[in-house]
Amino acid sequence: MTTFPTSLGTSTSDEIRLLGQDLTADLMGKVGFGELAFWLVALRRPTPSETRLFEAVLVALADHGFTPTAIAARLTYLSAPDSLQGALAAGLLGGGSRFLGVTEDCGTYLHEALLGHELPADEAGWDALAVEVVTETREAGKYVPGLGHPVHKERDPRTPVLIAIAADEGLLGPHLQLFQAIGRTHEQVLGRKLPLNGAGVCGAALADLGLPVELLRGFALLARAAGLLGQLAEERRRPIGMDAYLAVDRNAVYVDPI
Amino acid sequence: MTTFPTSLGTSTSDEIRLLGQDLTADLMGKVGFGELAFWLVALRRPTPSETRLFEAVLVALADHGFTPTAIAARLTYLSAPDSLQGALAAGLLGGGSRFLGVTEDCGTYLHEALLGHELPADEAGWDALAVEVVTETREAGKYVPGLGHPVHKERDPRTPVLIAIAADEGLLGPHLQLFQAIGRTHEQVLGRKLPLNGAGVCGAALADLGLPVELLRGFALLARAAGLLGQLAEERRRPIGMDAYLAVDRNAVYVDPI
Amino acid sequence: MTTFPTSLGTSTSDEIRLLGQDLTADLMGKVGFGELAFWLVALRRPTPSETRLFEAVLVALADHGFTPTAIAARLTYLSAPDSLQGALAAGLLGGGSRFLGVTEDCGTYLHEALLGHELPADEAGWDALAVEVVTETREAGKYVPGLGHPVHKERDPRTPVLIAIAADEGLLGPHLQLFQAIGRTHEQVLGRKLPLNGAGVCGAALADLGLPVELLRGFALLARAAGLLGQLAEERRRPIGMDAYLAVDRNAVYVDPI
Amino acid sequence: MTTFPTSLGTSTSDEIRLLGQDLTADLMGKVGFGELAFWLVALRRPTPSETRLFEAVLVALADHGFTPTAIAARLTYLSAPDSLQGALAAGLLGGGSRFLGVTEDCGTYLHEALLGHELPADEAGWDALAVEVVTETREAGKYVPGLGHPVHKERDPRTPVLIAIAADEGLLGPHLQLFQAIGRTHEQVLGRKLPLNGAGVCGAALADLGLPVELLRGFALLARAAGLLGQLAEERRRPIGMDAYLAVDRNAVYVDPI
Repeated sequence: MTTFPTSLGTSTSDEIRLLGQDLTADLMGKVGFGELAFWLVALRRPTPSETRLFEAVLVALADHGFTPTAIAARLTYLSAPDSLQGALAAGLLGGGSRFLGVTEDCGTYLHEALLGHELPADEAGWDALAVEVVTETREAGKYVPGLGHPVHKERDPRTPVLIAIAADEGLLGPHLQLFQAIGRTHEQVLGRKLPLNGAGVCGAALADLGLPVELLRGFALLARAAGLLGQLAEERRRPIGMDAYLAVDRNAVYVDPI
Repeated sequence: MTTFPTSLGTSTSDEIRLLGQDLTADLMGKVGFGELAFWLVALRRPTPSETRLFEAVLVALADHGFTPTAIAARLTYLSAPDSLQGALAAGLLGGGSRFLGVTEDCGTYLHEALLGHELPADEAGWDALAVEVVTETREAGKYVPGLGHPVHKERDPRTPVLIAIAADEGLLGPHLQLFQAIGRTHEQVLGRKLPLNGAGVCGAALADLGLPVELLRGFALLARAAGLLGQLAEERRRPIGMDAYLAVDRNAVYVDPI
Repeated sequence: MTTFPTSLGTSTSDEIRLLGQDLTADLMGKVGFGELAFWLVALRRPTPSETRLFEAVLVALADHGFTPTAIAARLTYLSAPDSLQGALAAGLLGGGSRFLGVTEDCGTYLHEALLGHELPADEAGWDALAVEVVTETREAGKYVPGLGHPVHKERDPRTPVLIAIAADEGLLGPHLQLFQAIGRTHEQVLGRKLPLNGAGVCGAALADLGLPVELLRGFALLARAAGLLGQLAEERRRPIGMDAYLAVDRNAVYVDPI
Repeated sequence: MTTFPTSLGTSTSDEIRLLGQDLTADLMGKVGFGELAFWLVALRRPTPSETRLFEAVLVALADHGFTPTAIAARLTYLSAPDSLQGALAAGLLGGGSRFLGVTEDCGTYLHEALLGHELPADEAGWDALAVEVVTETREAGKYVPGLGHPVHKERDPRTPVLIAIAADEGLLGPHLQLFQAIGRTHEQVLGRKLPLNGAGVCGAALADLGLPVELLRGFALLARAAGLLGQLAEERRRPIGMDAYLAVDRNAVYVDPI
């Protein structure tokens, strides 16, 4: 008989267990939602400091206004208002490589850069490592994830704030330190100065929290689920979906296929 | 020129605003993720008491083990491991009328039952209202949402705990009071005693928090997004998707169409 | 041991069976794709006449240009170009009650109207039944599905063509006849003349083909899957997703929450 | 004013155009659904021979029984029976790199292998090219897509049939010829004999039809949409979703997180 092992939810007629805890006696009212989300993936309860940094990341990623994914969710809700889950899912499906992927890409990039390196002892050491890593990336013809932003061209306001929270909580780990060093040194390799962006610093912070880098996109999606709920609530109160659709459809122009 | 009004995220080159706040100065590190999710929908920051009750609901709904939606998410991840967002979306798409809909149905049911009624002054008054409402539902040939559970046949352990948290925080509002009265009185109308289930009490609590009843399913989905991340993280560590698939496919039997 | 009965695909090491046929000997190269789609749901192979009508419906529903669902699919592809399946799924998720639901609603409406009625013997009989049904609908405060169109205000060009194909193939069944009678008579009940729309006539034709009315939306979704592939292919060749996004985001205006 | 160019659907009050054709005068009743799907992506109407090969591919890929994606769709329908589009979307979301990706991977692999090579003049030439390509792939530590199958270990019955249809229609192009040559020669490079699988031969045939290799997955998804409709229709008639869920949940075993 095949069995299906799990460390997550199980229940009997009078008890519900989750992560080896009693859901009602140990968790409800005692653990926050962000804490639980961390615990579900990392299989350990985060400390209050870790929770603060983790929730700051989720808050930073929750909503960025009229992104393509927010508009897709609203258009789906316009077409199928009977299925809130469909509109939410449609919004999350845009959480792929481009608009929501930088968090995971940056965390993974830093994680791989640190593998097989001794951690530097001082800022000069971090800078040297950063130069080495960025140079390699450049020579491979690739981009350094987490650098540059279409709107925040000089400075992404999230970056220093998240680094300050991490420092404040004693959680400025190797990923954030390497990311900072990339911020200080990339200009000498790439020939131009770009800001460290918010999605990237979030990826670095999540990696420093010990979360698996292959799943960092998942936290961006969780944060965005809250933001999309906000977008759909607003679509109910003050809809823009019809106008967004008409802005395209009314300006459609037929062109012959080439 | 069509404009697109929003009270959610907007940004300029050096500032990101969300809900009329400065994201980095006012929100990051200062507001929890659950708080922000509430705020995004309700357009007001919840009090600490409200936050505790709200997060207890999210914790209660986050993961229920190997539900159909969790299995669907894992099977999707098995088939398409390159797209975490697809697996998460597939899991959320099961958040419809049956397995995840009770929260919304129950909140809506209580909300509509309270419309046009003066709030009772004492327990006897609540009981009388509950008898009236359940009787009407029965006569319409419908079910009372939030009653009964396939596993917790006697008592759903979440129900008293969530009610205690609400009472403790001074948030035992009319929806929860009517729900309790239904628990005390339905047997005299329906002829059998059923437990108030956890999904139902969560819906009552969310409605008492003033959240729009048309969107209550959305909070169940948000909670479940965290649970599904846990399921997908476990699928990476200790996969069961292939075994779940084979448990069906190896026991397939061809039958002629009728 | 639980077994899982199916009349669809099964296979052994050297044979693949589908619907009780040998996939390679009986189906590939011998049955069209539309035919197979019909067969998979109805469990019988359609006749050539049925296939022609069925495929005319799918062709009519495949693509309606820049619909909300097409735009949602393109925006999702813009955000997550690595996941074609996600973009397609996002587009289909808009296939709900509003923009793609009329086909199913109309088929179901006609189906229910015909239950418990003897089929009329002549046009006058159909007209009398139509007046009865539309009057009942009106008195219940509901809309007659399949009437009216935002663009084709006078006449939906698909309607007479699909009816002509059905007549030509000897497939003008009771659903289409009742729908035509509604077209002739609704003005005397509703006080204004509306066109029979294309989505509605498609639902009537699918119901006349004997397909289960609870699944008519499914055929609209299948047709739309082909249309969405066309949209995504065009998004690769001549992208408009970024412009659609900017048309909204560049005209965003912050408003205080009420 | 931004305009949105398209060669797909546009409409005026009395005409609907699609691909530069009049939908009702030129397409409905005159073009098959498979033909239209091809046309929507390729922007040209396929010949009858091309249509036969193309539809044979769609028929081959439509349903493979209780695949992970079919089970995911059924579980989603069990949870949310109000949203057929959600169940269909959930099933399609599994159409990623593993279970449905071979078609695209194989078409792309062959396409890239042919770039920059003169087409061989005879079978010996094709064999030499195949040996070169497979050797390169092996040396890069990669797999040759389209080789091997978990069930059809000796011979995939779809492969010779699809090749015969292509030959019969005069459509045995370079992708299919290279794929055949890989079938004849890979053993001398890889040291063991594997069958050319059905998903792979479908990818080769689609590439020979001139369809863009970046979108081949899309045709597998379209085919699967029909199959999933069949699965969902069967789930209505003879449900297995609940049993599939219980087969997992009843055999869940709690294990401590490591």
